[in-house]
Amino acid sequence: MVATAPVENATRRSRAGRPARREGAAKARGVPYIQRNIPTYDVLSEENLVKIEGVADRILAEVGIEFRDDPEALEHWKRAGAKVEGPLVRFEPGMLREIVSTAPAEFTQHARDPDRNVRIGGRNVVFSPAYGSPFVMDLDKGRRYGTLEDFRNFIKLAQSSPWLHHSGGTICEPVDVPVNKRHLDMVYSHIKYSDRAFMGSITAEERAEDSIDMARILFGTDFVDRNCVILGNVNVNSPLVWDGTMTKSLRAYARANQAAVIVPFILGGAMGPVTNAGAIAQSYAETLAGCALTQLERKGAPVIFGNFLSSMSLRSGSPTFGTPEPAIGSMVVGQLARRLNLPLRCAGNFSNSKLPDGQAMQEGLMSMLSAVHCGANFILHSAGFLDGLLSMSYEKFVMDTDLCGALHSYLAGVTVDDNTLAMDAFLQVGPGSHFLGCDHTMRNYQTAFWDSALSDNEPFEKWSEEGGSTDMATRANAAWKKTLAEYEAPPLDEAIDEALCDYVTRKKAAMADAWY
Amino acid sequence: MVATAPVENATRRSRAGRPARREGAAKARGVPYIQRNIPTYDVLSEENLVKIEGVADRILAEVGIEFRDDPEALEHWKRAGAKVEGPLVRFEPGMLREIVSTAPAEFTQHARDPDRNVRIGGRNVVFSPAYGSPFVMDLDKGRRYGTLEDFRNFIKLAQSSPWLHHSGGTICEPVDVPVNKRHLDMVYSHIKYSDRAFMGSITAEERAEDSIDMARILFGTDFVDRNCVILGNVNVNSPLVWDGTMTKSLRAYARANQAAVIVPFILGGAMGPVTNAGAIAQSYAETLAGCALTQLERKGAPVIFGNFLSSMSLRSGSPTFGTPEPAIGSMVVGQLARRLNLPLRCAGNFSNSKLPDGQAMQEGLMSMLSAVHCGANFILHSAGFLDGLLSMSYEKFVMDTDLCGALHSYLAGVTVDDNTLAMDAFLQVGPGSHFLGCDHTMRNYQTAFWDSALSDNEPFEKWSEEGGSTDMATRANAAWKKTLAEYEAPPLDEAIDEALCDYVTRKKAAMADAWY
Repeated sequence: MVATAPVENATRRSRAGRPARREGAAKARGVPYIQRNIPTYDVLSEENLVKIEGVADRILAEVGIEFRDDPEALEHWKRAGAKVEGPLVRFEPGMLREIVSTAPAEFTQHARDPDRNVRIGGRNVVFSPAYGSPFVMDLDKGRRYGTLEDFRNFIKLAQSSPWLHHSGGTICEPVDVPVNKRHLDMVYSHIKYSDRAFMGSITAEERAEDSIDMARILFGTDFVDRNCVILGNVNVNSPLVWDGTMTKSLRAYARANQAAVIVPFILGGAMGPVTNAGAIAQSYAETLAGCALTQLERKGAPVIFGNFLSSMSLRSGSPTFGTPEPAIGSMVVGQLARRLNLPLRCAGNFSNSKLPDGQAMQEGLMSMLSAVHCGANFILHSAGFLDGLLSMSYEKFVMDTDLCGALHSYLAGVTVDDNTLAMDAFLQVGPGSHFLGCDHTMRNYQTAFWDSALSDNEPFEKWSEEGGSTDMATRANAAWKKTLAEYEAPPLDEAIDEALCDYVTRKKAAMADAWY
Repeated sequence: MVATAPVENATRRSRAGRPARREGAAKARGVPYIQRNIPTYDVLSEENLVKIEGVADRILAEVGIEFRDDPEALEHWKRAGAKVEGPLVRFEPGMLREIVSTAPAEFTQHARDPDRNVRIGGRNVVFSPAYGSPFVMDLDKGRRYGTLEDFRNFIKLAQSSPWLHHSGGTICEPVDVPVNKRHLDMVYSHIKYSDRAFMGSITAEERAEDSIDMARILFGTDFVDRNCVILGNVNVNSPLVWDGTMTKSLRAYARANQAAVIVPFILGGAMGPVTNAGAIAQSYAETLAGCALTQLERKGAPVIFGNFLSSMSLRSGSPTFGTPEPAIGSMVVGQLARRLNLPLRCAGNFSNSKLPDGQAMQEGLMSMLSAVHCGANFILHSAGFLDGLLSMSYEKFVMDTDLCGALHSYLAGVTVDDNTLAMDAFLQVGPGSHFLGCDHTMRNYQTAFWDSALSDNEPFEKWSEEGGSTDMATRANAAWKKTLAEYEAPPLDEAIDEALCDYVTRKKAAMADAWY
């Protein structure tokens, strides 16, 4: 269970948290993941958490959840003692909490470079790129469908950032590749162009299994059976429906001892109640059922408790993102996940803006900080989204990864020790002088403050005369191009590369193209 | 003492928090102030807070604070038992905490419209415009020195927003008015163009007294002696120096039973240590001394414990704003202020960007959310700043007031009751259907979600075809012009108006122009 009381001065600072030297950090590899040194932000009392759990229990017992097109899932539920009538499954209060108690509170997802392994759960925080947009956009060419080249570009941008920890999954849809073959190119690209941990396909059971098979080529079959090396992000068809495609993929990951991320998608007022407390109760019920199904498939398999809350505009009926209600609701989801002792995926960097402008960063940060505050362990969608999740923006991606850098310093909290308390500096400097050159400043200035690579901090005159009066989006446009131009792929064992290519070629050859 | 444990379901929701109807809210008057319904975000343990207080005590006892050019302040300290040697004053540990214990934990600042009175302290949150920029900027005319017309424009924009609660003080410097006469025009303009509470001058003792005299004309002399009607924001000359101009103004406000806001200004590494814990200890010591001086001048006078932390760029040595270290440090300042049982001013909306772009909103929100999280009661600088505090931006001002609206919903937290838990909706809708037209949605949708007036939430095609592909700054440019065009001054009693004009004319006639 993660500490919810104030925690400071973590002992493992050498492994995570602030890097030892900030200078030149943009070129550094960064830390493999963050260990938070600030508490979670808990907004509800235990009494109210119990009320929400109580409504979730009533939803599960009185309304139930439909499991469609997956007879094996229904068999699992029957064996576990749930009430199964056709596709509708109802659960006695407490039953699902009991079942999920066999899932690990923390686990390691292995990367092909062991120095990049991520620890998911507890006080650990992992930033991963956004996931699932059909479109990409940049300031030069505007919005268009994503391609495999775009997909690879975003992997390269992610790999080049010291402030992300994970390569993600479907960073954008490579729409130029047939639907039934995309997963092969995507998984191969993650392995080829990144040395970080990654995610596989969930759009069909056989694609999930292909993804895991490719991970077996990389890591070895025995290793994969004993360790988590790939994640699959499965969505509930909210409200209260689990589709067979999703539960079959979920079970494929669990069966292979790999981690499914279980995520309802609730636009308040459409797929769930328009009020936060009810939407959270529904989400809790839907996620809990998915998490429990992983344990029925394979007891002890890792699983991540996921969540996605959203709001809508009164004026247009459009979904809205980065708004206050989902942000504050995420804190409650975090509290509930910790009561289950499960790793959490919650919130991320969301915006409805169509440009990398003020709206984009305001909405993105409100949403992203809620992920940080609520104690999310795996923060999918940490970078890139615009256009209400429909587009990956090249500029926004590098603006967001820069923000992820700032959040490393934020999560490091306030260290209190003899050095940071600086009594020696006060005795040396005294009233009315300055600290610019004092010993304490010289000893600490290189690691004291986050220094953004994209923010302009020059005086106005210098910004306008020498800096070209640029806005952040313009600087970001230059930054992603420079990063792609300088990218170098991390070396991959040639035999593994060949085996993966061979697997992809064989699989593709055995299928006709499908475009839906 | 404000509750630091989770609090929900405040009973006075009709007075503050979310307005009953969100529709047409842009034209509504809004709530007079917010009562927070979420806990403060406390990041440090009591053990570490005590360590910081301990270093502050050592700074006060071993290094001391200089009080320059104010013999009466030194006399106060001598009578109180401090060690006074020349301008240097040193204090026994605990002495200042004892002295400030006579200041009120909460107080009301009266507005000329009693419905606009603000309650400062406890769970209350008051948003006030930014303060002190010499420049103004907009997208049409760029950056230039502020004028009295700009000053009045910003008062009108503030008055027109339902999401601010206070008219502020020196919203921008009216550089076209002589330095020694500005305060008269500024205080008059606040009274004339706004019906909200406001701030007076602190740049000289006689200007502070003029400001208070004008408040006496508005409220009556007896009323002013018994009630707070004006605030004065006084700055420490960090490190560890209080200038006589400031302490004389501070004492003028306290003597009149008006509230001084006591604010160190620490750029880490320059006016204080480069590490957060030490900068916070210094700030605490400096503020505590100022707060105590108000109580020596007049026991029981209201005072606000203020703070301003900042960071700097390693690359340029420039100050940086909206960065993670001051944000997280602000939470600690909040914890320390609550241990003193004093109202808090902390953080605000700061950015170094020269444009209302992504940088501006990212930095602004990181900083502004820290004010909200740390429990600040009076949030000066809630709207308008760009350019590292040097410019007030017309566009940023309306973008920030819109954000302040979102923060009303954020601070309302998650309400847990039978309605919000929505069990009736789940029983009505069931699995696989939608909540769009169900009774629960119809009953709640109008108040469920914040709806920004400036964010674009349309689908991409509508945004690009009908919306002109605008960014947020462009929409803000249109919004402030429309608001100024539609502004109507709140009615002011004619006799009071005449008396104030007469006061200003007489005072100005008695002075030669001074431009420094």
